[in-house]
Amino acid sequence: MSEFGKLGVAVRTIARADAGLVERLGRAGVATVHEAQGRTGLMRPYMRPVWPGATVAGTAVTVLLHPGDNWMLHVAAELLQPGDVAVVAVSSDNDDGMFGDLLATSYRARGGRGLVIDAGVRDARVLAEMKFPVWSKAIHAKGTVKATVGSVNVPIVCAGMLVEPGDAIVADDDGVVVVPRERVAPVAEAADAREKKEEANRKRLAAGELGLDLYGMRDALAKAGLRYMD
Amino acid sequence: MSEFGKLGVAVRTIARADAGLVERLGRAGVATVHEAQGRTGLMRPYMRPVWPGATVAGTAVTVLLHPGDNWMLHVAAELLQPGDVAVVAVSSDNDDGMFGDLLATSYRARGGRGLVIDAGVRDARVLAEMKFPVWSKAIHAKGTVKATVGSVNVPIVCAGMLVEPGDAIVADDDGVVVVPRERVAPVAEAADAREKKEEANRKRLAAGELGLDLYGMRDALAKAGLRYMD
Amino acid sequence: MSEFGKLGVAVRTIARADAGLVERLGRAGVATVHEAQGRTGLMRPYMRPVWPGATVAGTAVTVLLHPGDNWMLHVAAELLQPGDVAVVAVSSDNDDGMFGDLLATSYRARGGRGLVIDAGVRDARVLAEMKFPVWSKAIHAKGTVKATVGSVNVPIVCAGMLVEPGDAIVADDDGVVVVPRERVAPVAEAADAREKKEEANRKRLAAGELGLDLYGMRDALAKAGLRYMD
Amino acid sequence: MSEFGKLGVAVRTIARADAGLVERLGRAGVATVHEAQGRTGLMRPYMRPVWPGATVAGTAVTVLLHPGDNWMLHVAAELLQPGDVAVVAVSSDNDDGMFGDLLATSYRARGGRGLVIDAGVRDARVLAEMKFPVWSKAIHAKGTVKATVGSVNVPIVCAGMLVEPGDAIVADDDGVVVVPRERVAPVAEAADAREKKEEANRKRLAAGELGLDLYGMRDALAKAGLRYMD
Amino acid sequence: MSEFGKLGVAVRTIARADAGLVERLGRAGVATVHEAQGRTGLMRPYMRPVWPGATVAGTAVTVLLHPGDNWMLHVAAELLQPGDVAVVAVSSDNDDGMFGDLLATSYRARGGRGLVIDAGVRDARVLAEMKFPVWSKAIHAKGTVKATVGSVNVPIVCAGMLVEPGDAIVADDDGVVVVPRERVAPVAEAADAREKKEEANRKRLAAGELGLDLYGMRDALAKAGLRYMD
Amino acid sequence: MSEFGKLGVAVRTIARADAGLVERLGRAGVATVHEAQGRTGLMRPYMRPVWPGATVAGTAVTVLLHPGDNWMLHVAAELLQPGDVAVVAVSSDNDDGMFGDLLATSYRARGGRGLVIDAGVRDARVLAEMKFPVWSKAIHAKGTVKATVGSVNVPIVCAGMLVEPGDAIVADDDGVVVVPRERVAPVAEAADAREKKEEANRKRLAAGELGLDLYGMRDALAKAGLRYMD
Repeated sequence: MSEFGKLGVAVRTIARADAGLVERLGRAGVATVHEAQGRTGLMRPYMRPVWPGATVAGTAVTVLLHPGDNWMLHVAAELLQPGDVAVVAVSSDNDDGMFGDLLATSYRARGGRGLVIDAGVRDARVLAEMKFPVWSKAIHAKGTVKATVGSVNVPIVCAGMLVEPGDAIVADDDGVVVVPRERVAPVAEAADAREKKEEANRKRLAAGELGLDLYGMRDALAKAGLRYMD
Repeated sequence: MSEFGKLGVAVRTIARADAGLVERLGRAGVATVHEAQGRTGLMRPYMRPVWPGATVAGTAVTVLLHPGDNWMLHVAAELLQPGDVAVVAVSSDNDDGMFGDLLATSYRARGGRGLVIDAGVRDARVLAEMKFPVWSKAIHAKGTVKATVGSVNVPIVCAGMLVEPGDAIVADDDGVVVVPRERVAPVAEAADAREKKEEANRKRLAAGELGLDLYGMRDALAKAGLRYMD
Repeated sequence: MSEFGKLGVAVRTIARADAGLVERLGRAGVATVHEAQGRTGLMRPYMRPVWPGATVAGTAVTVLLHPGDNWMLHVAAELLQPGDVAVVAVSSDNDDGMFGDLLATSYRARGGRGLVIDAGVRDARVLAEMKFPVWSKAIHAKGTVKATVGSVNVPIVCAGMLVEPGDAIVADDDGVVVVPRERVAPVAEAADAREKKEEANRKRLAAGELGLDLYGMRDALAKAGLRYMD
Repeated sequence: MSEFGKLGVAVRTIARADAGLVERLGRAGVATVHEAQGRTGLMRPYMRPVWPGATVAGTAVTVLLHPGDNWMLHVAAELLQPGDVAVVAVSSDNDDGMFGDLLATSYRARGGRGLVIDAGVRDARVLAEMKFPVWSKAIHAKGTVKATVGSVNVPIVCAGMLVEPGDAIVADDDGVVVVPRERVAPVAEAADAREKKEEANRKRLAAGELGLDLYGMRDALAKAGLRYMD
Repeated sequence: MSEFGKLGVAVRTIARADAGLVERLGRAGVATVHEAQGRTGLMRPYMRPVWPGATVAGTAVTVLLHPGDNWMLHVAAELLQPGDVAVVAVSSDNDDGMFGDLLATSYRARGGRGLVIDAGVRDARVLAEMKFPVWSKAIHAKGTVKATVGSVNVPIVCAGMLVEPGDAIVADDDGVVVVPRERVAPVAEAADAREKKEEANRKRLAAGELGLDLYGMRDALAKAGLRYMD
Repeated sequence: MSEFGKLGVAVRTIARADAGLVERLGRAGVATVHEAQGRTGLMRPYMRPVWPGATVAGTAVTVLLHPGDNWMLHVAAELLQPGDVAVVAVSSDNDDGMFGDLLATSYRARGGRGLVIDAGVRDARVLAEMKFPVWSKAIHAKGTVKATVGSVNVPIVCAGMLVEPGDAIVADDDGVVVVPRERVAPVAEAADAREKKEEANRKRLAAGELGLDLYGMRDALAKAGLRYMD
């Protein structure tokens, strides 16, 4: 981790999580992947999709910016490969509109699948029309300068979660989850297993069976001291 | 109120507000019910519907949870009756995803009409597809444990408002309002009267009449010191 | 500015920005107008449209209220002219539902085009059905009193931005921008020029050209110390 | 609870928690009383003392205000008895400076011991010099009007906690806790017992004994799955 | 106001409020000045003194910065005159540590009396030791760049309040209030009168007289509908 | 980083930053260390000392908790060595009072120097009397359970910053900064150099020299477009 948060560096070559496994994680969705990973990996809940229904799964190209300055987003464009998602941190809290429809056009042209940014974005309506998936902390028209270098493809903390270049990123209406590159295989496996089990449970619950019985909770509740009264 | 906030208790039998009156309150909507009740009963405005257009009216089954622990939501499922809305408080601030599509399936199967929770929920897209109405403080995939008992059907404070089991709950795009069980009749009456009056006023305002004249405000404004200038 | 924030005054006659230029600003949208104006004029990003897709451009009728009191919104109704947008500040932070469907009906009947309010509104669903554009800080059913006089058409600060009566207001999904009345002509000019330039850039970026080359950033990045690594 | 949040009422006669027991609760302090009461009764942590080191224990005279309006604080002054603490809620979020040194002078003259207010106060330095204990949500010079009636001595929710007139209030650097009037005896008992036990534990911990051993946690940790690694 | 928020300008010559009157305002304090000015002029309450007990009164040298960039604070140093207070806005929300002990040393050497900044500061302990009065939104060690020009001595909005160069600034534990340069005389007059009146009232309240009687509120309360109950 | 955020593990043996270098970092203080490290390593500014004047420098023993559950703080006590600072993250936002005077007594007895916790603490007054340095997000009396295992000595994100076991932690009134274990030597070097340079600059600024001249900014400002006006 010696490069964590290092400034002034753009790393061209990174190892990426396996594309097929990333797809499988994407089909499972954020809540299931988070559970399958032992309830870890979630960004904080203030990260919201710019348009409802947005979903994405891809490999992280990480970007570290300074407040009010989006210069590195242009550097990142060149380093995006098909299947990548740009994941952007700022060196301190900032809501400026770092990203808009022109950058989205460029990212898509380079194969970029989406953006996760711990800052603001603008051109919200056009992003929705383009169906370019974006998760951000704010929507804000505020423009930015291009004056101070940050970094591309160093480990960062985005919305409270560590992200290393090449990690798998899954995002939907429930938020954003990060799966470290070397863990995508077992997590995808566990996610699929969980999905199957939940599907079976859903049917029983829909038929009126209680979770208390389905999950066998009654004894534990009594032992923990729950007392029923009329 | 000796049971307020008491932990470790699940009360099976509660008196519920009259179903027909609750329906009438639901038709009036949150803003009108709040006014009809003398401008009281509103939860704080951070409580937002998980999907736009959600509305619900029902009788409260109250739940008290601990942060990071949704165990009592399963206990509540068994105590829900058709027409109920689960109203959930947490013993301290927490955004975890306490409730998702499996619990929604279960609640619906038991006749539950919706959920009002001063915490987070997940599976937001499925909740919208199911048209299961939910008001919450956050959307967050974060999973929870089942380790510490809280309570069901004791008086609670949810999003700043006191809720007693069996109270009427009305929720829509404007927020959530609570009507104490014993007051539903006069409040429904007052809400209907207010609706009628507003309908008449709406027509006059649409025709260009001013509120200044319609409500006879000009004298009071002058007395209060308002001065017109050109 | 000697009238800034003055209380107890309603000014009947104000100079308004040119209607044709305001329309042009509206077509350009918030992000472009903000850039065209030298990156100034934006309200803070907590101001959000009550319904998605809302847009408005008009001339400001300013209103200064007290917390929990919407009396002056009725005084403002009489002073609205076709093409106006009411812009509302409160003398201290307040989320109460100051404005709802009856006032929207009245404002529309008087030619009002929309509302920008640094407080709460209610009847959110009806406002959406009416397609009456509103930007606010909160949605809250909380009713207000009519007891203390504020002002209409004095300079105010709304959501962090100075607004003088007659200024141009443009609002959309990206937020709210204010253009001082005397600057609408050059700003509209600059906005149109910027739009044209962006359209050309959009095509080149869509074709895969990089911003690094399009904007000639490579030398400046190297000078600023960016180092590429493999 | 039929009077919960009722507006326009000032109740002259209330039953108060026993003064001696309230003193005992005060000596135990907020954290201990909260634990002794089964981890209930705490207001939310945004309530902070206006000056460091402030402590108070007393019986609640409750006040319900409207945003921007402190009229009822004068009504409450007359109803204060020696040993009382005024506990103030507002019908919606408000940071205005509802209370300052003149009211503090008046409250003290009537025997009032302190103030807990879910809003703002002013004259912070004089309050500190007077050693008048105040817990509030904000310090703000903003003045208020006297135009709309609220209530005195009805049940209220203050900073997320239900308070009934006459309840015991204990406040210190750790926050504010409410003990229902009818529970002060057992809670004072439990608080004293807890204090004694903690004193013994403190000595053993100070001598280097581990909580793991003192509380016998090692087996439970192993069963819960904790794994030690080198 | 045509220069409001203009970027890239440093204005050398400004008219300043009368020094003697500014002193009188300072003696009255923030709450009194705000009342004397008709309850206007306050910044938002998140502006807090960096060390307790700080007070200042002076004339505003205004500064407009960009997020993460404190360059203009050096430009302002040269334009400070004895008796000035630097008042600093940022073009979007930012908590970076824009100002520390070196700038405080420089400002003091130039006659600067203090700082009011809608951003962060650092070296908090040294500022306290120097007794250099600072009001800010945050304390944060985060360093800033010097890359983009803002302005000095143009009208700005700081913490929600309009400030023009040369306005009087008064700050203490209760917050920050701005008095427009041309109004300092009548406001100082009104503040002194208010002080005298409050002093008299303080004595009567300390003697146990009630505000209800002192201010003659009983009739108005009854008319407004207050009902006493036992 | 394969252990990042892993749950259910307590690592007994960690490498620690050199004690002498950590002392040097502590003497330099947070702002200087942050600058010396290339403006990286800071936690977010909501982390505040529980008592004014607290300072600490030590080596990190990291702890990962669940909301409402402080069990692992007892596990950490055993793994503390003289010179350590416990650094605590929670798996989701939580303000509960995770740590109080008993744990402080235990930590001190084991050689622990302080606590940095992205959650709440209690017994604030006793912590101040003990002079036990604590940085936290909240002060809250709310008690916690001991039911779910987290981890000790795995890499965590605390208040937005990555912390690995054994890293150097420096905290004072300006916040908290983390220096990776392997970088303490060059950062201590750079910090000392910076201190010396600042000392020299302080004298020149105190003598009235301007930063504009001292740092040679006039040309760059002119090139960047700053225009002086009278």
